Amino acid sequence: MSDETLHPARIGVWFVGARGSVATTAVVGALGVSHGLAPATGLVTELPELDPDGLPDLGALVFGGHDVSSQGVPKKAEALVAGGVVPAAVVSAIGAGLDAIDAEVRPGYVAGEETATKAVERLAGDIADFRERHGLARVVVVDVASTQPPVDEPDHVVDLDDRLPVGAVYALAAFRAGAPYVSFTPSPCLRLPVVVEAAARAGLPYAGCDGKTGETLLKSALAPMFAMRALELRSWTSVNLLGGGDGQTLSDPEAARSKTVAKRSGLDAMVGRPVPGPMHIDQVEDLGEWKTAWDHVRFDGFLGTRMTLQLTWQGCDSSLAAPLVLDLVRLVAAAHEAGRSGPQPALAFFFKDPVGGTEHRLSEQWRDLVAWRGGLGA
Amino acid sequence: MSDETLHPARIGVWFVGARGSVATTAVVGALGVSHGLAPATGLVTELPELDPDGLPDLGALVFGGHDVSSQGVPKKAEALVAGGVVPAAVVSAIGAGLDAIDAEVRPGYVAGEETATKAVERLAGDIADFRERHGLARVVVVDVASTQPPVDEPDHVVDLDDRLPVGAVYALAAFRAGAPYVSFTPSPCLRLPVVVEAAARAGLPYAGCDGKTGETLLKSALAPMFAMRALELRSWTSVNLLGGGDGQTLSDPEAARSKTVAKRSGLDAMVGRPVPGPMHIDQVEDLGEWKTAWDHVRFDGFLGTRMTLQLTWQGCDSSLAAPLVLDLVRLVAAAHEAGRSGPQPALAFFFKDPVGGTEHRLSEQWRDLVAWRGGLGA
Amino acid sequence: MSDETLHPARIGVWFVGARGSVATTAVVGALGVSHGLAPATGLVTELPELDPDGLPDLGALVFGGHDVSSQGVPKKAEALVAGGVVPAAVVSAIGAGLDAIDAEVRPGYVAGEETATKAVERLAGDIADFRERHGLARVVVVDVASTQPPVDEPDHVVDLDDRLPVGAVYALAAFRAGAPYVSFTPSPCLRLPVVVEAAARAGLPYAGCDGKTGETLLKSALAPMFAMRALELRSWTSVNLLGGGDGQTLSDPEAARSKTVAKRSGLDAMVGRPVPGPMHIDQVEDLGEWKTAWDHVRFDGFLGTRMTLQLTWQGCDSSLAAPLVLDLVRLVAAAHEAGRSGPQPALAFFFKDPVGGTEHRLSEQWRDLVAWRGGLGA
Amino acid sequence: MSDETLHPARIGVWFVGARGSVATTAVVGALGVSHGLAPATGLVTELPELDPDGLPDLGALVFGGHDVSSQGVPKKAEALVAGGVVPAAVVSAIGAGLDAIDAEVRPGYVAGEETATKAVERLAGDIADFRERHGLARVVVVDVASTQPPVDEPDHVVDLDDRLPVGAVYALAAFRAGAPYVSFTPSPCLRLPVVVEAAARAGLPYAGCDGKTGETLLKSALAPMFAMRALELRSWTSVNLLGGGDGQTLSDPEAARSKTVAKRSGLDAMVGRPVPGPMHIDQVEDLGEWKTAWDHVRFDGFLGTRMTLQLTWQGCDSSLAAPLVLDLVRLVAAAHEAGRSGPQPALAFFFKDPVGGTEHRLSEQWRDLVAWRGGLGA
Repeated sequence: MSDETLHPARIGVWFVGARGSVATTAVVGALGVSHGLAPATGLVTELPELDPDGLPDLGALVFGGHDVSSQGVPKKAEALVAGGVVPAAVVSAIGAGLDAIDAEVRPGYVAGEETATKAVERLAGDIADFRERHGLARVVVVDVASTQPPVDEPDHVVDLDDRLPVGAVYALAAFRAGAPYVSFTPSPCLRLPVVVEAAARAGLPYAGCDGKTGETLLKSALAPMFAMRALELRSWTSVNLLGGGDGQTLSDPEAARSKTVAKRSGLDAMVGRPVPGPMHIDQVEDLGEWKTAWDHVRFDGFLGTRMTLQLTWQGCDSSLAAPLVLDLVRLVAAAHEAGRSGPQPALAFFFKDPVGGTEHRLSEQWRDLVAWRGGLGA
Repeated sequence: MSDETLHPARIGVWFVGARGSVATTAVVGALGVSHGLAPATGLVTELPELDPDGLPDLGALVFGGHDVSSQGVPKKAEALVAGGVVPAAVVSAIGAGLDAIDAEVRPGYVAGEETATKAVERLAGDIADFRERHGLARVVVVDVASTQPPVDEPDHVVDLDDRLPVGAVYALAAFRAGAPYVSFTPSPCLRLPVVVEAAARAGLPYAGCDGKTGETLLKSALAPMFAMRALELRSWTSVNLLGGGDGQTLSDPEAARSKTVAKRSGLDAMVGRPVPGPMHIDQVEDLGEWKTAWDHVRFDGFLGTRMTLQLTWQGCDSSLAAPLVLDLVRLVAAAHEAGRSGPQPALAFFFKDPVGGTEHRLSEQWRDLVAWRGGLGA
Repeated sequence: MSDETLHPARIGVWFVGARGSVATTAVVGALGVSHGLAPATGLVTELPELDPDGLPDLGALVFGGHDVSSQGVPKKAEALVAGGVVPAAVVSAIGAGLDAIDAEVRPGYVAGEETATKAVERLAGDIADFRERHGLARVVVVDVASTQPPVDEPDHVVDLDDRLPVGAVYALAAFRAGAPYVSFTPSPCLRLPVVVEAAARAGLPYAGCDGKTGETLLKSALAPMFAMRALELRSWTSVNLLGGGDGQTLSDPEAARSKTVAKRSGLDAMVGRPVPGPMHIDQVEDLGEWKTAWDHVRFDGFLGTRMTLQLTWQGCDSSLAAPLVLDLVRLVAAAHEAGRSGPQPALAFFFKDPVGGTEHRLSEQWRDLVAWRGGLGA
Repeated sequence: MSDETLHPARIGVWFVGARGSVATTAVVGALGVSHGLAPATGLVTELPELDPDGLPDLGALVFGGHDVSSQGVPKKAEALVAGGVVPAAVVSAIGAGLDAIDAEVRPGYVAGEETATKAVERLAGDIADFRERHGLARVVVVDVASTQPPVDEPDHVVDLDDRLPVGAVYALAAFRAGAPYVSFTPSPCLRLPVVVEAAARAGLPYAGCDGKTGETLLKSALAPMFAMRALELRSWTSVNLLGGGDGQTLSDPEAARSKTVAKRSGLDAMVGRPVPGPMHIDQVEDLGEWKTAWDHVRFDGFLGTRMTLQLTWQGCDSSLAAPLVLDLVRLVAAAHEAGRSGPQPALAFFFKDPVGGTEHRLSEQWRDLVAWRGGLGA
């Protein structure tokens, strides 16, 4: 049976963190939008520049994944309704779909409970089994689990070593199962030689890291403005207030370091030198699913005149992340179908810390993305 | 004597509004930077992408202009020092230079005191005389006078009609004198058939209108971000608080209308539909030379989630405008030397309401500018 | 039957605008809080300083009112749930109560459809009938209808003249029916001689005008700070973005004038001189039930140093207003029972434009309120 | 010679940190205002409620002090002119006065270079000598030196122990010299038993700690508003960006702890329970003498509706502090003259962390201050 006859092919989406806020918002949205219950707002791949008709349809996506939590997807969807993240009407209309998805969630990997070697094998088996049972053309694995701490000496981490970071175990499992991989979480994994080599051996495309959803998105639109106008950035202060979930992980200073590093490096790269200024990531419990970022930007103008820009961004992290996750699935699936392999720097548009690329300016990333999409064909 | 032997050619800068804040800041800056008293912050033409070495040197600029005010440039420079716009040290160091420039200011045109026909002749004579006395390779005329009201039926305004807007009289005088023209102020003049035709007959390049210095600059960096991310702009509220000078003119509702129209049209063009939301331009006397803009942007994300971005921009209008004026002089002089004529849409980067172009997205304007500059050669 | 034996007396609350957002939020809240479904957040009369035990119980309130709308209270409650103003769970739990209240709504007064004379009689009859049917100790009439335009020559408006503003017709009806009256909306009515005299004749207490719920509340807390610290307010700019309902009325410039005048007068009174600065009230449709106010305050410190305070207030108008309405009902009912009559300036704490008083500083108003409450006894 | 015949008595002001920004701004201001070169903006003691005529005249103040820096007052004044803190014209006009003051600065105390015992004796001698040489009625010592770290076990610090915090050495020297003492800096000293007892033995009045100049001032005006309106504070996030001087000290986490503790305790006291939310104090070098505070306040309204207030305060710390220092000198001198001794809780109006008092609400503090001032008489 040729690929041709499979069309429209059904594509698997395998979430690492399948019962979390981002994955649940993504599945609610994919079902809601494909059933005409909600507009396609936030879906970059629905813009004409990216030729949506040549990409896998949202309705052709089949969802499953790993999670260490036993609280199911429908329960999480309820919590997201209560938190104002997803509309009650959409969740009621697609309720049965969520149960079916939850039935496709398999136990995640907990370091210490099994060896990395065994875990990779087990997790890869789950992915392959999912692909076969559903007759899927391909499965894209997307890591939307919590932020992971940086690895200090990446070259010392070798294959199936038990010091392997959790995210790397999932990446290796994806490659073992022949699945392209997207790291949407702050994670050092896609830069570990052991992971890079596994991807190369498997000839699979991958992309990451750390979805660019809020304050860093703003920076990537605004820092180039200062550069193009020859205005001198003197300091850029960033304060991120995060509610329950994401905030909780980041109150662990080790994990927060991953995120802070990612957020900072882009700004410095765009400006061409380190820009001073504190950066805070704080948990403010009562913000729930919402986050507020305040940025204070001091810059000098002509003859040294002192000027200031302040920004306050009030967004819902899962709502910002979920459509990008679906975009990445569609794009990486198309890249896989087109035979691409290795890091996909043209997907830098979606990430704070793009693997394989150095471009952080949003407009340039957009041009790269559109050109790359054109190169894939329909 | 060939052009070659003139190099490095001295270039005239003729300001309409030569004793105002923008012109004075520009001359203080040009002298200060060319004498090494201040860094080139804010000068776009000093960025390597625009190949500064092939453009007229700041030190090669010779200044003069028209003004209806009798308060001299040195007095205005003092006021700008007091207002924190230009450094005292620079003004002291270049004091004599300012006196010399003030001696090159000729009386401006006041509607009703002379006919438009006579005014064009007189003003053109002043410009030509300035060029000859100083042996200048060329003179670029830049209108940095106050905002002018829109013209309701532009096609009904005919040559040297005394209903001609003030700005058009200056533009016609520039073209009569063989000088390229830049309209840095909100003004309908460069779209009046009578002006367009005069420029075409003279074979001169021109550019405008309305320098993009603050809130509109931010919009041109941020609106594309929302578009590229498929986020739905629901409303964009803009509040501009302006101090003394600029604010005073804009408290005249007719003049303010020119500015409001210019500010609005760009946003709607970038988004592809009218974006609702009030826009205010208010005079707040005690802000002096400073302005504060507050923007409140409401947008929808995935599944209709309601999010908000707020911006507060605190800048000094003259400091933002002055380096762009010098940039435009350098670029338009180079275009003139290269034989360009007519509107220069590639200079849209500098304007709220670009003549001859429809591109409002800052990054695209930057690409256009860099390409156009490349085309001029050294 | 003596008043004593009626205790705990049932108190009527008669809303002018009974099917609007504020009245509906108030009834949902009164039922919700008295049934233990929600905490007493926002209810000033539940603070110990105001001795809640001596005031009418929330559970003893019986609701009715006038409205020109035919869309019922339960429908409005649904809309408020959708808009995030009241919790779905509370509305479901008290559903039957809302139907009963809607059955007590009588047609409002529409100028031109009946004479003011007849309207006063009819409306007063509705109020008296409500009191009798329910055996209420007293009924407090509260005007929570839309903003009304100012009256230019109040002394020229005489009893039952048909130029009588709509609000005045309701106030006269209240007094005719022997009911104390609260004007929670911006309205000139309580300063019309015809209304003042009617209240005096009836020996009834009344209070108003224009609930102090947001930006003006902030001003009344902050302006005294500048005064106590001898900091010089140079300008105070206020921008109010209002969603659907309230905003719609205020886009009528005449109505907006009432509100603007009220908001401005307090600040000037607290500072002791007019404070310059624009004030805008704009409708921004997509804000729904929410409002955002931005204030930009410029002040001078020691030796004229220029400083700035900016405020952004994001609130829900109905949620801010509704508990104050219930507070006023409890307090005015207690005042009536205690035999008070005429304007009650000690209630200035609740109003932008206090009738009978000149104190605008929040802390002083609080002290006045607490003292007045003490004087009423239990 | 009776006190009467001394009038108008000359009063000494002895600064700990006499060459710092706050002391220099205070002396520039005292000279500038008393010579009619600047208005009395920011001077609380010039408000009629505090009966200025009965307080020592600004022109009667004679300045001196201790400092560990050898950079003189005139040099610091120049730097403050450059930083926009004090006007150039005032400094030029009073130049000779600054030289004279600098001649009255004596070497400060450096722990380790002399024993605390010897230091107290030496410093007290300097103060007494200053009083005698100038024939002063009294000298008020004001500590405006850098923030000092908290002391963990205050009861274990005993008289003239060399673990004595630096600030305590100065306080003991003041009391030894018979001078009232004001701690305007964050410091644990006025709560050390050894200091409290020395003040009691000397029968001298004292006041502190930590001038309430910016964000905490705002909190003390706004937190009561939430309390009076029964609005539930869910979180209060505070971010303080400080420039060069003050910021530098506070980047020492131990010193910052003193300040953070002071800032937090007031809010919690006003609300009656701990209010969650991060608090940051960051140094942002390029802000110079300026500070920017951003506060994000989340509160619940009626039925749990989630609302937000954001504040941005842009002020100059020295300009905010200096007039309060002069106010305290005048008030404490008057208290001394009136025979008051011990902590003066009625001066809590001026402090983040008032010694001897628990009132943090600004309006209540103001009432206390006015009443206390009345009690002193003329």
